[in-house]
Amino acid sequence: MNSDSVAMTDLFEKMHKPETVCIFGTGDFGRSLGLRLLQSGYSVVYGSRDPKNSLLLPKGSKVMTHAAAACEAHVVFVAVQREHYGFLSSLVSDLEGKVLVDVSNNLKRGLYPESNAEYLSRLVPGATVVKAFNTISAWALQSGGLDANRQVLLCGDRSDAKQQLMDIAQSLGFTAVDRGSLRVAADLEDLPLQLFPLWRLPLNIAICLTAFIFFYALTRDVIYERVTNGKDIAFRIMISLANKAFPIVSLVMLSLCYLPGAMAGFLQLYNGTKYRRFPDWLDRWMLCRKQLGLLALAFGFLHVLYTLVIPIRYYVRYRINVYTISLVKDNTTYEFDNTAAWRYDSYYSMGILGFGLFVLLGITSLPSVSNSLNWREFSFVQSKLGYITLLLCTAHTFLYGWDRFLKPSSYRWWTPPAYMLSLVVPCVVLILKLILITPCVDSKVTRIRQGWERQGKTLANGRDTKTNQPLMA
Amino acid sequence: MNSDSVAMTDLFEKMHKPETVCIFGTGDFGRSLGLRLLQSGYSVVYGSRDPKNSLLLPKGSKVMTHAAAACEAHVVFVAVQREHYGFLSSLVSDLEGKVLVDVSNNLKRGLYPESNAEYLSRLVPGATVVKAFNTISAWALQSGGLDANRQVLLCGDRSDAKQQLMDIAQSLGFTAVDRGSLRVAADLEDLPLQLFPLWRLPLNIAICLTAFIFFYALTRDVIYERVTNGKDIAFRIMISLANKAFPIVSLVMLSLCYLPGAMAGFLQLYNGTKYRRFPDWLDRWMLCRKQLGLLALAFGFLHVLYTLVIPIRYYVRYRINVYTISLVKDNTTYEFDNTAAWRYDSYYSMGILGFGLFVLLGITSLPSVSNSLNWREFSFVQSKLGYITLLLCTAHTFLYGWDRFLKPSSYRWWTPPAYMLSLVVPCVVLILKLILITPCVDSKVTRIRQGWERQGKTLANGRDTKTNQPLMA
Amino acid sequence: MNSDSVAMTDLFEKMHKPETVCIFGTGDFGRSLGLRLLQSGYSVVYGSRDPKNSLLLPKGSKVMTHAAAACEAHVVFVAVQREHYGFLSSLVSDLEGKVLVDVSNNLKRGLYPESNAEYLSRLVPGATVVKAFNTISAWALQSGGLDANRQVLLCGDRSDAKQQLMDIAQSLGFTAVDRGSLRVAADLEDLPLQLFPLWRLPLNIAICLTAFIFFYALTRDVIYERVTNGKDIAFRIMISLANKAFPIVSLVMLSLCYLPGAMAGFLQLYNGTKYRRFPDWLDRWMLCRKQLGLLALAFGFLHVLYTLVIPIRYYVRYRINVYTISLVKDNTTYEFDNTAAWRYDSYYSMGILGFGLFVLLGITSLPSVSNSLNWREFSFVQSKLGYITLLLCTAHTFLYGWDRFLKPSSYRWWTPPAYMLSLVVPCVVLILKLILITPCVDSKVTRIRQGWERQGKTLANGRDTKTNQPLMA
Repeated sequence: MNSDSVAMTDLFEKMHKPETVCIFGTGDFGRSLGLRLLQSGYSVVYGSRDPKNSLLLPKGSKVMTHAAAACEAHVVFVAVQREHYGFLSSLVSDLEGKVLVDVSNNLKRGLYPESNAEYLSRLVPGATVVKAFNTISAWALQSGGLDANRQVLLCGDRSDAKQQLMDIAQSLGFTAVDRGSLRVAADLEDLPLQLFPLWRLPLNIAICLTAFIFFYALTRDVIYERVTNGKDIAFRIMISLANKAFPIVSLVMLSLCYLPGAMAGFLQLYNGTKYRRFPDWLDRWMLCRKQLGLLALAFGFLHVLYTLVIPIRYYVRYRINVYTISLVKDNTTYEFDNTAAWRYDSYYSMGILGFGLFVLLGITSLPSVSNSLNWREFSFVQSKLGYITLLLCTAHTFLYGWDRFLKPSSYRWWTPPAYMLSLVVPCVVLILKLILITPCVDSKVTRIRQGWERQGKTLANGRDTKTNQPLMA
Repeated sequence: MNSDSVAMTDLFEKMHKPETVCIFGTGDFGRSLGLRLLQSGYSVVYGSRDPKNSLLLPKGSKVMTHAAAACEAHVVFVAVQREHYGFLSSLVSDLEGKVLVDVSNNLKRGLYPESNAEYLSRLVPGATVVKAFNTISAWALQSGGLDANRQVLLCGDRSDAKQQLMDIAQSLGFTAVDRGSLRVAADLEDLPLQLFPLWRLPLNIAICLTAFIFFYALTRDVIYERVTNGKDIAFRIMISLANKAFPIVSLVMLSLCYLPGAMAGFLQLYNGTKYRRFPDWLDRWMLCRKQLGLLALAFGFLHVLYTLVIPIRYYVRYRINVYTISLVKDNTTYEFDNTAAWRYDSYYSMGILGFGLFVLLGITSLPSVSNSLNWREFSFVQSKLGYITLLLCTAHTFLYGWDRFLKPSSYRWWTPPAYMLSLVVPCVVLILKLILITPCVDSKVTRIRQGWERQGKTLANGRDTKTNQPLMA
Repeated sequence: MNSDSVAMTDLFEKMHKPETVCIFGTGDFGRSLGLRLLQSGYSVVYGSRDPKNSLLLPKGSKVMTHAAAACEAHVVFVAVQREHYGFLSSLVSDLEGKVLVDVSNNLKRGLYPESNAEYLSRLVPGATVVKAFNTISAWALQSGGLDANRQVLLCGDRSDAKQQLMDIAQSLGFTAVDRGSLRVAADLEDLPLQLFPLWRLPLNIAICLTAFIFFYALTRDVIYERVTNGKDIAFRIMISLANKAFPIVSLVMLSLCYLPGAMAGFLQLYNGTKYRRFPDWLDRWMLCRKQLGLLALAFGFLHVLYTLVIPIRYYVRYRINVYTISLVKDNTTYEFDNTAAWRYDSYYSMGILGFGLFVLLGITSLPSVSNSLNWREFSFVQSKLGYITLLLCTAHTFLYGWDRFLKPSSYRWWTPPAYMLSLVVPCVVLILKLILITPCVDSKVTRIRQGWERQGKTLANGRDTKTNQPLMA
């Protein structure tokens, strides 16, 4: 053993000998945290109002009064709800120079004007406050970070304190990410209260579209039949109407997911640069393309199931039966229509292939799959294969319509069938894309996106942030 | 360049200059480990019984006798099977003060009374033993940790030695997790020998349930028909009976996955606190809810396929054909039954929507997806959407039954049809949940779960470990 | 607070006080990197040709001339395209002793004889060049590494410089992996330009096989019918032929995914050791088994959809109708064939169970799922369940054929039906496997794979790299 490694060992020993960590609060989170710290080789001291009656604390930990516990350690976790922070003001001198870790969350957003961590910092001005671990649940702490989120986000005003927390987080098997100064604590406290913020807009679009198509089809199919023929076919609501609304919403949302990219291309062509910001609505739209696409896939999936269930429906069996019997009675024969055979088979085939590709897009949107792709692979799948999916699904819808758009009987009450409406957006997207990939336009867009052209001064890197954003993931 | 960064660079250089690592054993694991260490900038020295005949060692490594190799490095990996540890006793003096890393696994559990690492520690008392890397395969080492498990679990009695291993693991692209003292080495050695421990109970439940339902239906359908009418309809085993067993098992297991949560709620209400431990069986049940749910989904998936295949079955086509011909011959007409149309369409629709939501639950159970959700989002999906799924699937089963429970012909041999049995557990779960979400009960449970109420002294954190556990993930 | 922790704090403060990092280049990547560094507490100085006209730089950063910026920091990111590296030669003295980080990518492979990083190192010989961050997109930097690839690969000739970069990467929330010396920079620069390298061979096999089966079936079905009976049944191309090609390709590729493993077993038996390298083609084949299996699953999925769509096809409804009418007219009855009922139902049942298991194999191939399995679990699923899947799918195909291989009418133009061809490879694989699992052969193979037997000198570890490779993941 050479002298260097001796020195190194000494240094390590000094830096990593079992450190004592203090936890204020003996609730679920405090107990789970303490257990995990003990498992990872730390000594743990609990500070409690009533040290003698603190039950269920992990074996190996000590429990004492807040003041006594604070003296034992340099890092103090405050695992107490904000409403009970008051008692800390009496410990100001004991906590002087300590690192106070605020792990708290609120029950609702916007309950308090300032973040819990900043409030804590104001209460104990002599201590360094770090916000950390609030996105980790007691459950994730207990299960060893094996199957729960492993990222500890932290923020604070002093790098050394943050580094200590990052070391603790890493010893506990988490990945620590420094998110900046204590000012961003409010953002970190909002994270666990979020409920699918990026899904709101796409979900609202999906719900509105579904409702619109549903009532549109209800009027044209069920109510029209009732008014003009007096027949009650309301039972069609359950499957036939649902199977009209779902594919239409799916197709429209899939195209909505590719529309902003095409629009951005034209905007860049118009601006002659990629360094002008897009309007805000376009930015927001681009950010929720993945969600738009996945919702489209969900509706497409329901459409597939609703379609495959058709032949076992009571109504369909009844219709086929009645038709067969009528043929027998009229003594006519069912003429085989070669065009119809081609048309229906192509229609189903386009749909199946389109759905197959769509599922592939969905799978590559899974975090673990998209993380294992490089940029080129990801954009190949999401952009190239995505447009082929859109093309197949649009062709599927056109084959469904076939020549019906020529028949006046399709336009009940002077309204076009719902499927025609659904073709507007996809056609626009496909035409825009067709223009963008013509060689002369494509070369211009490519040059703009590489930062060249009318921006000779920019030394960009061949990767841009806006237009090559993940399309669906 | 200011003086500070000079000092820093010096420190870094001292701490991080190419370190030499020794590996005893030139098998697959030793070779893969050496290759990976070399790639990450370490010097590697192999210790071998027969240095001259050691083949296939990575380029750039040295090979010498065990004693000579041990002198070169501070950290010595023992990549040798436990049975061959004997030779180490002759190296006790060479290994004095070294860090010995035990990477071994056994072929079976419980082969030896003490863990390999503790045995190693006893053999070479002067060295510090760290158990590490045993959960990493030679394959994972070679493939650069890009698509295999990246977590290195380690344990040992000295923090400094563990820290050195954690640094090595991190340089190699792994995440290191300290699991405690050398006493837990036996647990780490068991990890690679486990075969789906959490899946055992749910799988056994699924198999027993399937067997029971299958034989129950076999008796009531096939054997009954044989005994009373003398007809052989045994061919129904392949699809009709399977399609009775699968949906029933799916529904029962889905409800079994939500039953313990409801029971826990009532138990907490009864105890008036959440700080009393649940009985062991309830704890174990709660821990395998994810597996119960995923198995239910698998059975539901098979049920969907078995149902969709119905119209292309020979038997079904035969039946429809015979029916049509009989109608023609009797010159009767098929009366359209509006109620039946509503009933069957609703039945399919409920099933499709329920299955769609169920697939969504399954997708959010994928580790990479559930890791990207925060706690609120996860429990929204697994709890709220989960109960809606259960409700839809139960409604689907009720619509299947419709008024058949009133018909005496359903009760062959005085037994109820299988689908009726399957409704018991889901109904119990839904009724319990209904009680729990009535405003007055709900507010009590919420208060208890927040640690308030009859436990004024607890300063909990708004997150609890038991009842808000992941329901399906 | 004891003196130890004071010392530790001092050390931490010195090592981690806000460090200044310099970025050359104000393009997308430079801006995103700067923003991220600022968020993580670094000071950022941009070097720009035209400091006064640099727009859109993140708030809090400074911008100055290249020379001035270089003086401010020890680490300099060169976020400039390789073509513009020229200006660096005038800064050689300013960059003396600095760490230069090459983050560049090329637009195509093989554009330059040497890697960008080595070129940079030659241009500025006094600086230490580290290649890093080139696999991270500007988008991933902006989105906080939360949903994009979090692994920073780096290489370079000096460990201290690499360690500094690893620390920066970790502060930014990434995982850093050291890939070795600057010589591997060319490999790192190729990574973002790869387009599914492991998928090429399997995709080519799948495309060739599909084309072959398609034209084979086209000849035997459509062209034969045209030539001998003069009937045009070309509409069958869309669904019937597709549904012949897809299942056959799926079955053949699934068996191709298990064939190399069986061959490797026999090769090891023949060699009597596992320490002789397999031939190169076998190695390459084994490496793409996961891709072969997943493509087989994709084709199987399409087969399922094409099959389920059968009963709503125009042609099928026509055929059933015509048959029913003919029965009525001929006044014959449809005789129920008990064997046919058994055969078709078993055929569908095998197919459904096989597909269900196949989907399970696919799910365990998802990176996040396979990462959560240990080696034993993974090989249980991929090997045991994989062979059961192959067995079920082969039985499904045999049941499809039934006794048709005995009928001369099946051999149109002296060619066997396509499904018979598809049975060759799976049968070979299953027979090979059957031989390998007979007790006497199995025990020999097991001993060889554990490194024992005729290789008494090897101290292996019970885990081997070649034959126990992931089968499908």
